[in-house]
Amino acid sequence: MSHLKRPIVLTPGDPAGVGPEIIAKAFEKCPQITQDCFVIGHPQVMRRAALRAGFSVDMPVVVIDDPQQALALPPQCIAVLQTTEIDIDYQMGVVSAAAGAYAASAVEWAAQAALSGAVSAIVTAPMHKEALAAAGEPYCRFPGHTEMLQAIAARSLGVSPSELPVRMMLANRELRTILVSIHVPLSEAIDAVRQDEILETLRIAHKAVGGLLQRRPRIAVAGLNPHAGEGGRFGREEIEQIIPAVAAAREIGVDAIGPISPDTVFMRARAAAGKRGEFDVVIAMYHDQGLIPVKYLGVDEGVNVTLGLPFVRTSPDHGTAFDIAGRGVAKPDSLIEAIRMARDFVGLRGVPTN
Amino acid sequence: MSHLKRPIVLTPGDPAGVGPEIIAKAFEKCPQITQDCFVIGHPQVMRRAALRAGFSVDMPVVVIDDPQQALALPPQCIAVLQTTEIDIDYQMGVVSAAAGAYAASAVEWAAQAALSGAVSAIVTAPMHKEALAAAGEPYCRFPGHTEMLQAIAARSLGVSPSELPVRMMLANRELRTILVSIHVPLSEAIDAVRQDEILETLRIAHKAVGGLLQRRPRIAVAGLNPHAGEGGRFGREEIEQIIPAVAAAREIGVDAIGPISPDTVFMRARAAAGKRGEFDVVIAMYHDQGLIPVKYLGVDEGVNVTLGLPFVRTSPDHGTAFDIAGRGVAKPDSLIEAIRMARDFVGLRGVPTN
Repeated sequence: MSHLKRPIVLTPGDPAGVGPEIIAKAFEKCPQITQDCFVIGHPQVMRRAALRAGFSVDMPVVVIDDPQQALALPPQCIAVLQTTEIDIDYQMGVVSAAAGAYAASAVEWAAQAALSGAVSAIVTAPMHKEALAAAGEPYCRFPGHTEMLQAIAARSLGVSPSELPVRMMLANRELRTILVSIHVPLSEAIDAVRQDEILETLRIAHKAVGGLLQRRPRIAVAGLNPHAGEGGRFGREEIEQIIPAVAAAREIGVDAIGPISPDTVFMRARAAAGKRGEFDVVIAMYHDQGLIPVKYLGVDEGVNVTLGLPFVRTSPDHGTAFDIAGRGVAKPDSLIEAIRMARDFVGLRGVPTN
Repeated sequence: MSHLKRPIVLTPGDPAGVGPEIIAKAFEKCPQITQDCFVIGHPQVMRRAALRAGFSVDMPVVVIDDPQQALALPPQCIAVLQTTEIDIDYQMGVVSAAAGAYAASAVEWAAQAALSGAVSAIVTAPMHKEALAAAGEPYCRFPGHTEMLQAIAARSLGVSPSELPVRMMLANRELRTILVSIHVPLSEAIDAVRQDEILETLRIAHKAVGGLLQRRPRIAVAGLNPHAGEGGRFGREEIEQIIPAVAAAREIGVDAIGPISPDTVFMRARAAAGKRGEFDVVIAMYHDQGLIPVKYLGVDEGVNVTLGLPFVRTSPDHGTAFDIAGRGVAKPDSLIEAIRMARDFVGLRGVPTN
């Protein structure tokens, strides 16, 4: 695997969770994928995580003082850029304001580094929602990574967060899906099935997945209602919102088709058994429509990508797993796939996912 | 496979679709599964279907005049009980009122036979919705099999259809799911997420799946909203409707747990790679929540079971496939699984799925 021009920054997530441990394991298990990567925070957090991971051979933790130094390190070294002088106090699997603030300030540092061009992408290990809420201002304002990154990016561009529409893409080896809405009640998600929101999602999907694949992506749009409404018999959102959005997207050169019956579109898009799917990505009308099929075969390899930001951001598709944190049993698979996908975006395109 | 005490009736579905062809193929491919089964309608429909199926050896079509005779036939004979004197005129793949009425009257005959105890179960091949609508009174009143069977059964029990609650179960080798609502707009499906509807679904699931497995089934209840509402942050239906329904079901001895996050409950219930799932069945809050995971791996083996009727009724999980009807390429797999499941219900329980 060839070197990147600029390194990828990994944020540790909540140190009381599995984040630092799966980062250490990713460096150990996949030296090619993790070359050019570095972690931020305090080196002691990574030293402890590497010890707890229980490797047969000790993993060296190397402190760097410039992101570019990450490109020159030998494999299986955990590169840490020290962004804080204070080694923090935390107990594995326990929510604390200090750990929440540690995790969140790393995300803020990473976003600034991406905006300034010091790094080519951000891969974020999981934060804990309650720890984030306990961390106080400004971090407690954000439900999670996506909103925090959106706010920081919008500020740097001089716009409001709502003027920087972002979308969540979930992907594994078989399926990619991009969601029109995420963490809202299902009744509100139905209200968000509007022509403008769907068209915006299609624009973002076309650009991001097109960049990833280096060709015009084949985009399927799921319906909202059973059987995509069956011509208005089971709901009118397809007729009033989705069909016009698909038509408008096609007008501007997007290869979109739909609405397609939600219960078969994911099966048709699935790439498996050496066969590529009918579509490169499915636009899902709400959170669970897209996440149920992505997660159905197991969550080990799912990757979350935030599209629409002025930089590349990926993350594993799981949480802090406080119940197993520090026991050395957490799997790095999803994080490894997240780093691999960040490399794909950066290496192939050299341009952001917005 | 031992003989049943009473035969299983197969309805041909729309003769212009794949129904008669997949029935012929099921008799040819799986003589053990189809023993004790017979088709109704006119024998010429099955003779033509057997010819079109293109078997290397001709399949005999044997006309019987009493359902019980089906139990004594040798394997790989297509048993037909002639319920009409009129061989009908139809063109493969073309909607017609005559074909719609042919299909629907067979369903009516089968329901009466099941209610009278002449058959132990009904397996229905697909009807075409437009042909059914074109068939005139009384058939055009019904959107499909389920509503027609519900109306006939209710009438025979002297109650209104709404007093005979039925539920759709979809099942394949990995997953079973039972739906709180089916063919309604998603916004109406949300309104149907009520304590009484969920409790009724749990009662039906407990009885039917318990009968099938011959033990107390482990039932998972999906949430409605993302992450099952996260304690009310993304919707209150979990708190106000689902949690009380699960508690009420547990009070009456149902092994129900939930609400569980919709994006992981199906993955957890999935039985695969020799491992049984965490749950025997998942209660889905709306059509696509349950059907997306059941169909994700392909629809060849999906089975639809109507629960709550005073008899056993299963069907393949696909439509008439007019686009390929008569070309000899339709797969009988889902129908075979539907017959197998009907045998399981009848053979193990000897009691209906209500």
